[in-house]
Amino acid sequence: MRIINRTDLPSLKRSVDQGTQEQRASVQNIIARVKQEGDQAVRDFTEQFDGVTLEKMKVTKEEFEQAYESVDGEFVSILEEAAANIRAFHEKQKTSSWFDTNPDGTLLGQKITPIDAAGVYVPGGTAAYPSSVFMNVIPAQAAGVEKIVMVTPPGEDGQVPAGVLLAAHILGVEHVYKVGGAQAVAALAYGTETIPAVDKITGPGNVFVALAKREVFGDVDIDMIAGPSEIAVLADETAKAEEIAADLLSQAEHDARSSSVLVTTSSQLAEDVKEAVLQQVEKLPRKEIAGKSVEDYGMIVLCRDHEEAVAAVNEMAPEHLEVMTASPFDDLAKIKHAGAIFLGPYSSEPVGDYFAGPNHVLPTNGTARFSSPLNVDDFVKKSSIISYSEQALKTNADKIARFARLEGLEGHARAVEIRKERWT
Amino acid sequence: MRIINRTDLPSLKRSVDQGTQEQRASVQNIIARVKQEGDQAVRDFTEQFDGVTLEKMKVTKEEFEQAYESVDGEFVSILEEAAANIRAFHEKQKTSSWFDTNPDGTLLGQKITPIDAAGVYVPGGTAAYPSSVFMNVIPAQAAGVEKIVMVTPPGEDGQVPAGVLLAAHILGVEHVYKVGGAQAVAALAYGTETIPAVDKITGPGNVFVALAKREVFGDVDIDMIAGPSEIAVLADETAKAEEIAADLLSQAEHDARSSSVLVTTSSQLAEDVKEAVLQQVEKLPRKEIAGKSVEDYGMIVLCRDHEEAVAAVNEMAPEHLEVMTASPFDDLAKIKHAGAIFLGPYSSEPVGDYFAGPNHVLPTNGTARFSSPLNVDDFVKKSSIISYSEQALKTNADKIARFARLEGLEGHARAVEIRKERWT
Repeated sequence: MRIINRTDLPSLKRSVDQGTQEQRASVQNIIARVKQEGDQAVRDFTEQFDGVTLEKMKVTKEEFEQAYESVDGEFVSILEEAAANIRAFHEKQKTSSWFDTNPDGTLLGQKITPIDAAGVYVPGGTAAYPSSVFMNVIPAQAAGVEKIVMVTPPGEDGQVPAGVLLAAHILGVEHVYKVGGAQAVAALAYGTETIPAVDKITGPGNVFVALAKREVFGDVDIDMIAGPSEIAVLADETAKAEEIAADLLSQAEHDARSSSVLVTTSSQLAEDVKEAVLQQVEKLPRKEIAGKSVEDYGMIVLCRDHEEAVAAVNEMAPEHLEVMTASPFDDLAKIKHAGAIFLGPYSSEPVGDYFAGPNHVLPTNGTARFSSPLNVDDFVKKSSIISYSEQALKTNADKIARFARLEGLEGHARAVEIRKERWT
Repeated sequence: MRIINRTDLPSLKRSVDQGTQEQRASVQNIIARVKQEGDQAVRDFTEQFDGVTLEKMKVTKEEFEQAYESVDGEFVSILEEAAANIRAFHEKQKTSSWFDTNPDGTLLGQKITPIDAAGVYVPGGTAAYPSSVFMNVIPAQAAGVEKIVMVTPPGEDGQVPAGVLLAAHILGVEHVYKVGGAQAVAALAYGTETIPAVDKITGPGNVFVALAKREVFGDVDIDMIAGPSEIAVLADETAKAEEIAADLLSQAEHDARSSSVLVTTSSQLAEDVKEAVLQQVEKLPRKEIAGKSVEDYGMIVLCRDHEEAVAAVNEMAPEHLEVMTASPFDDLAKIKHAGAIFLGPYSSEPVGDYFAGPNHVLPTNGTARFSSPLNVDDFVKKSSIISYSEQALKTNADKIARFARLEGLEGHARAVEIRKERWT
């Protein structure tokens, strides 16, 4: 973990991995085939990429029940409590339709409607990610989405991890399909005989999943393309080095490309954290991943003053930001760009990953400059409402017609003017 | 204009034009060159595609003043009144940061921050589109975006239409560059020596602009890819055929690929509107475009009952929907998918294009199923706030650690557990 002076760093921005031309071509081909051949193509690609021959794509009631019985009751309670916390937070994000009336009788407003169907991609791999199920499904449910369709790649045994099924079961998600990769994204976007088409696809995945989401964007909506996870810690001498080190490593263990950065004005803290990271990483089961991540993308940025430190954080626009300073709420006012902001010594990042309530699907790669944590607004859309009154049209018809003619759109002008026959 | 029974129509969905492989490759090349060569590439492509050698890319103060003096004061007032209406509506879309505290001292919340810089693409062509300037810039300004950068292709004379400059001037936009096409999108996304990089690009354009926006999506945010404009009119026998016909033609005149559709249960109204369209189209200056649009994409859908008619509208998810029925507000409750909804006889679609206040940048091609009119939320982003208390961590540390271990993330568990040393 290098300690670098802020002034020696040219840029703190990371760039987005767009995939290779070959990967893009491969994804385009997969999508075209799924669009055309439906289930058959999905089965073929699952055999090819996952090495699994799917008998049934859809998870059965029996499989849900088996998953439920495979874990102990205490763990079910923890999951249920986490789900309740996440639901409580997202319920607060709901917004209402509104309208406003003018004395002349005109009504203008905005109607909020949930999308009809949401698709959730849950990544596969050796571990189960029930938290990913919660974080993608609960905002959609809070938004009022009626149909939720989940896809997740089957393991070598053709099964989906029990934790994922359990999480889906707790939330009442019935449509779960054992399909992953670009073929799953294509199936969600265009529908097959078995898998229903949805209006929006969310959830993280590998580069093929990301490219497929980018490809189908426009036909359906997608969330931001997720990159490797990131944490920045803004800390001063009031923070404990061991806690910072542990938090940095909690992100470093995700992926060898994850980035964990401490930003501080204290050179003593910088040294202590560096030391603590080196000690702690050795004891982690995922020490190879975490070690490589810290070596390649880990960094301690030493700043001349607090202002420079805050500016560095804003330039990074990190996915996760921990603020462990003497007065974190003062700093909150200065922070412009970060996906989730963890304030104070007890707000360790994993608290937000699993339990506190806010979403853990967050903008990466500096996209917090312009995008948000996954939230209820992602699953609704607005319609503008215009109810113009006779009086308003009388007053404004000529102005509107003149505006239209300036833009060379005579038909627009006439559509307004033809109403004048009503009162002349 | 064909009259077709709803039951004879298989699907009302339109598909999105994704461009050809050649167009995509060309756009990728343009973007790569602008990213690498900056201004020089922008100048080269402007010479190649617009036939213009740019002396200065940036519009000067003198050019703004000339534009202002080239139009009469009455027209300036109309523009100013329109801008004020649009601003008033968008100001109402603003949302606030919020937080919530638990008795144990935990604070959870959501912070709203505007993006730093927004880029607006204003299409070129023979006419000027001041309304496009208003509709893209005002929501960004209402959101609190500090830097707004506008690009628009130069005409053959190397100039930008006065109406566009006037509109920018009225809003106080200073960064206007005479650059269009994919090169303008690339310049906004990555910045050049002259053109500042932005965080989000909005505004309509041709297929190259649309493909370029799709290409840079992820590095910056974009609005939805705009397709040809659309109108659907849901009407019963209480509506006037001539007014409906004029409104349908107001969209048909935009583009030969625009679609204008009447949905009704009245066969008499269907016949009358068909007749009125044929008569009115002949008298339009843009009758060739409007005529072709009506012939290729115009349609009168005859439904058996009102329920079927509303369902047809929801299946179309039209950009613009006019409801000219006996009780339009009753119908509003049943309409799930439409970009803007115009209620009653006086709400002719052009009222919304120019003047009423709601945005005219609307989801096309059925994307109203999942996307919204351009709005203030498009120019802000959220950050989650988590300030966990000591008490909350004491109560929940073990649960969080257990959850993390189930997902195979030991480092996450330890980051929480290391805090336990504080109280043991």
